[in-house]
Order: sequence, then structure tokens, then C-alpha cells
Amino acid sequence: MTDAPRLKIKIQIHSGDEIAMGPGKADLLDAIRVEGSISAAGRAMGMSYRRAWLLVDVMNRCWHAPLVHTAPGRAATSGARLTELGEAVLRRYRSLQEGIATASCGADYDALAACLLAEPRASQKDREAVASPLAGD
Amino acid sequence: MTDAPRLKIKIQIHSGDEIAMGPGKADLLDAIRVEGSISAAGRAMGMSYRRAWLLVDVMNRCWHAPLVHTAPGRAATSGARLTELGEAVLRRYRSLQEGIATASCGADYDALAACLLAEPRASQKDREAVASPLAGD
Repeated sequence: MTDAPRLKIKIQIHSGDEIAMGPGKADLLDAIRVEGSISAAGRAMGMSYRRAWLLVDVMNRCWHAPLVHTAPGRAATSGARLTELGEAVLRRYRSLQEGIATASCGADYDALAACLLAEPRASQKDREAVASPLAGD
Repeated sequence: MTDAPRLKIKIQIHSGDEIAMGPGKADLLDAIRVEGSISAAGRAMGMSYRRAWLLVDVMNRCWHAPLVHTAPGRAATSGARLTELGEAVLRRYRSLQEGIATASCGADYDALAACLLAEPRASQKDREAVASPLAGD
């Protein structure tokens, strides 16, 4: 009853109103390391080049130095790689995720997992029972 | 440089495709305890009655028993209170949050906070530097 995937922990690090690092940005950094360009990394993650570029732009503005270095050239085809700071931030973020995942495997999680259904009940019966405002929806 | 609010940790507990518990649902349970009805709790949190009702409906379907008991009567005005299981799940979830918040105050967070800007740099300069696909936006 305590299979870990039921618990999802999302760590966001904020700089002002921007999210400087989060699960999606960390995965994008991993993909840039593997693919060697922002466009290929975005493609590998099923996101548009524009979206991937915007995420990189935010990351490059929130830390003491950029996390991704982009080689000059036509943007969509030019290479990209993590800077030294990018590598360090990604490593620390992954380590933080691991530490928190370990911390979450305790008595509280076990107690919650013991009361949780693997699949939710259907909605209809409960809707009637609580006099649904959605009747007729 | 290590002020805690920069780190935001979101714990979601899933049941099938539904989120059985998360930060917003836990806050709604707290509000229902205080306000004594779903509509007043929703109002206190700035959400519509329909939205609050849907969140309660999901919570009531994902656990071994409902977390919120609604008194019979016209839905929008009738009272609501946490069940015994609702109280227990809320308490365990808050405890899990505290444990994880404690676990996150370590060397990894300190290292990240030391490289993080309090406010991100402006976007324009960087956009030019990486040959922005957004020029003219």
C-alpha cells in the first residue's frame, strides 16, 4: 500500500516572481546536456522551441550567471550546453529532490497511504449524496 | 541569502488520475473547519462554490471514506465538517509538509540559495545575446 509513485513532490526555487528552478526546468537541463541544443532538447521533451527557449531565458536570468550557454548562430539550430554553474545547480537540485524523497518515506506517508484508494470511487453516487450543484451538467 | 520563502515544496498525493491531497485541498479543509460550510470556505479562499465543491468531491472519492461530511439541505447553504478521517488525513499531511520543509534546509539548499538572485535580471539583454526567436514580439 506504500508504493512511492502515489506521492509527488514538486520543488520550486523562486527568484522574485520567476521560478528559477523546478522539475520541468531540471528535466530540460538534462535534455540539453544529452541533445546539445535547445531545439533538440525541447523536441525530446515534446515542447515547442519557443517554450524551451523561454524556460532557458528564465533560468539564465535568475542566477548569478547563466545556466545555459548558447553558441552564436541561427538560434533554432545552434548548439547549447550547460555552464559550470548550470551543472552545479542541476546537481544540487537533484540532490535536494533525493533528500526530500527520502524524508517523505516515514510514518506520515505510511499512515496516509494506508487510507488511500488505488483508484478513486466514481463521482455519481457522492454527487447525489452531497446534493450536487452540478446536477444537470 | 537563505530566506526560506524562495523554496516552495508542493506535496501531491495521487489516487489514480486524481490528486487526493495537495496544498490547495489541505487549505480548503482548514477553511471548512473554520467556516463550517463549503460555500463559506470557498469564499474565504476566493474560489467559487462550484470549484470548492469539486475539490471536496475529489477528496471524498479518493480515500477509504469521505473526508468532508455535508449536512443535508440546500447544498450552498448547508453545513460541512471534517470527518474523523478528514481530520487524520489533514494532520498527517501537515506533518509530512513540516518534515519535508525541515529536510530541505540542508547543504544543497544553502548552495543553491548562495547562487540565486533575489530578483531576476531583465530579459531584454539576454534575449539579444541568445538570438531570440521572440524578436518583434
